[in-house]
Amino acid sequence: LPDGEPVGIRTTSVLVENVEQVLRQYAAEVEAEMATIVEDEVADTWMRQAIGYHLGWLDADFRPLNEEVGRSGGKKLRPALAILSYRAAALGPHGRAWLADDLSRVLPFAAALELLHNYTLIHDDIQDDDRTRRGRPTLWTICGTAQAINVGNCLHAISLHCLERLANRGFDAADVARLSAALAHASVELAIGQRRDLAFENEQDVGPGVYLEMVAGKTAGLLRCASYGGALLATDGSRPGAAKSLTAFGEFGMHLGLAFQIRDDVLGIWGAEEDTGKPSGSDIRRRKKSLPIIFALQAASEEAFEQLSALYSLGGELTTSEEACVRRILGSCAAAALAQSQAEEQRERALSALGWAAGNGETLRTNPFLANLAELADFVTHRSS
Amino acid sequence: LPDGEPVGIRTTSVLVENVEQVLRQYAAEVEAEMATIVEDEVADTWMRQAIGYHLGWLDADFRPLNEEVGRSGGKKLRPALAILSYRAAALGPHGRAWLADDLSRVLPFAAALELLHNYTLIHDDIQDDDRTRRGRPTLWTICGTAQAINVGNCLHAISLHCLERLANRGFDAADVARLSAALAHASVELAIGQRRDLAFENEQDVGPGVYLEMVAGKTAGLLRCASYGGALLATDGSRPGAAKSLTAFGEFGMHLGLAFQIRDDVLGIWGAEEDTGKPSGSDIRRRKKSLPIIFALQAASEEAFEQLSALYSLGGELTTSEEACVRRILGSCAAAALAQSQAEEQRERALSALGWAAGNGETLRTNPFLANLAELADFVTHRSS
Repeated sequence: LPDGEPVGIRTTSVLVENVEQVLRQYAAEVEAEMATIVEDEVADTWMRQAIGYHLGWLDADFRPLNEEVGRSGGKKLRPALAILSYRAAALGPHGRAWLADDLSRVLPFAAALELLHNYTLIHDDIQDDDRTRRGRPTLWTICGTAQAINVGNCLHAISLHCLERLANRGFDAADVARLSAALAHASVELAIGQRRDLAFENEQDVGPGVYLEMVAGKTAGLLRCASYGGALLATDGSRPGAAKSLTAFGEFGMHLGLAFQIRDDVLGIWGAEEDTGKPSGSDIRRRKKSLPIIFALQAASEEAFEQLSALYSLGGELTTSEEACVRRILGSCAAAALAQSQAEEQRERALSALGWAAGNGETLRTNPFLANLAELADFVTHRSS
Repeated sequence: LPDGEPVGIRTTSVLVENVEQVLRQYAAEVEAEMATIVEDEVADTWMRQAIGYHLGWLDADFRPLNEEVGRSGGKKLRPALAILSYRAAALGPHGRAWLADDLSRVLPFAAALELLHNYTLIHDDIQDDDRTRRGRPTLWTICGTAQAINVGNCLHAISLHCLERLANRGFDAADVARLSAALAHASVELAIGQRRDLAFENEQDVGPGVYLEMVAGKTAGLLRCASYGGALLATDGSRPGAAKSLTAFGEFGMHLGLAFQIRDDVLGIWGAEEDTGKPSGSDIRRRKKSLPIIFALQAASEEAFEQLSALYSLGGELTTSEEACVRRILGSCAAAALAQSQAEEQRERALSALGWAAGNGETLRTNPFLANLAELADFVTHRSS
């Protein structure tokens, strides 16, 4: 980012309710776009149904589920980030303002992000031997790992193919090519991040720096792409400063993604099951080397360090008393506060990048979507679910 | 394809040696481009090495292998098809003739095809529980299935990302976007074809039509893309008839791909181990429902049908005497000839499409690459390895 002070963007209150409302509203539109894409792209009935099962549209017998659209399939953070960045950039100094209210143009990209994300979830569940996701049996448990690998691969390919639709919605071929490359690049980073995450399970000396680098690939790269790509579609690239603004949107998404994942790590240990939908403390019992554990391994006394690293080098699930021991050590070195402060730092960096993305202070007062993006950064950092 | 008689393209002799020489020559250039791409795209050392192992560049300890470049990594049929189609189209009536000898421009696409193909091989080996490929232990046997899934995913993403390089080699953004979409579409078809192939193992009534539809997705779609995409890069799309010619190049690749796979099925049963590198008859012992078996199930006597379908509904490997029984039934209904005649038919269709792609008879006499493409169709139909 350029030298000098960025225009400060700070939220005065944490408007979590408001941003959750925005997420819900966009989720329904994105879900509808995803359904159209899957219908158009997948001629094979079984494949279409298996995708529908994973996305929460069908039950295990492939009959339609009557749950509220947009509820069962997660928060849809990536599409929301893309849509808000698109709207914010449209009203910005390099923006095509007339696009700000025309969501139909950005929906194929928003849907592509969510489809790509879901490919990774399907493969992650196989690799981690996870049997439950979003309260339902994971796809591989109902169709076997071989076919679940295929379903993931199909979603991966669809997510990159469906950007073709943007050409029919008035975008330049050059912008579509740039966006395709950005999404494919994020996907390369994702595969590398996931390989590192799995490798960490067997490594003793993973420090916070290496850990955050892994998260940058596995989670934050796609959020960077969401924010960059959404802004790209609404930006007139020929205006001076446009390229810098797009880079700043990308940085915003990257830091928001890091804050999101670190908060996820905190909730994985201290979150309540009724909020997160995951059994409380499951990250501990499964010996997941998430950021609080990595901090504890650094900050603990010698004795506590020996205990903790012994517990985390075992196979299988930890017992209840072993879990209690880990919790005591985490408490003794304030690992929750250490991790949360990292999330806060990433949120700060995200807001600073957003100032650069906005380009000038005037914009903030006239651009509600920038305010929504700042709220989103707050939300991911402080959420309880 | 349009009405009327296509310009006939027929080879007078099967110049297998010549086309094998062409394949070898291109393979070395494609291999070098692949190495550059993997080096540039993959910052993670382990991931780069695992890709290098699978591609035959490194041994299981990730030390360089001294084998001749371009030998250990398969025939590289897809890149060769792309390069020959590019060169043939460049000299054709809609072609940019000056591109015919500038292979550097088409190499990123040729490499992308081979990288995509190799992603599918890595995942296929996991799904089929195959322990050997090209005479070496498959990737998953040396790093486990979870990480091998990641390596495949990484190659999948790289193959779609590396097309970005075409923008730096003088191509229009619109052509790059069209090519990216074609490759991603082929990848969607591939995942669906692979899902059908696996599903057929458990289905009783797979006819030749359904089987060839599966092959069209799993194998022939990428070959269609290779021929279409190679030609696209060398074609001036604004000239009249260019779009029709590109479609015909795609059809050529599709039928060549069908001929290739059917010949593969024939070699899987009647090929010699010293030619194919696979244990003779392994397709029978593994109860693979390839085209000769499907024909036999249709053409066999009632008694033979009962025997054959009983043997093919078992689990595990067939015994030597069971294999002999299958061979007797295949022989009794001339399954080899039936299957080979299907390969010949696809070759005929490929050559007919090539006539349309060429556009006029003059071209053939002045365009050695069209002759090479016709030889390639002969080669895949009649090869013994």
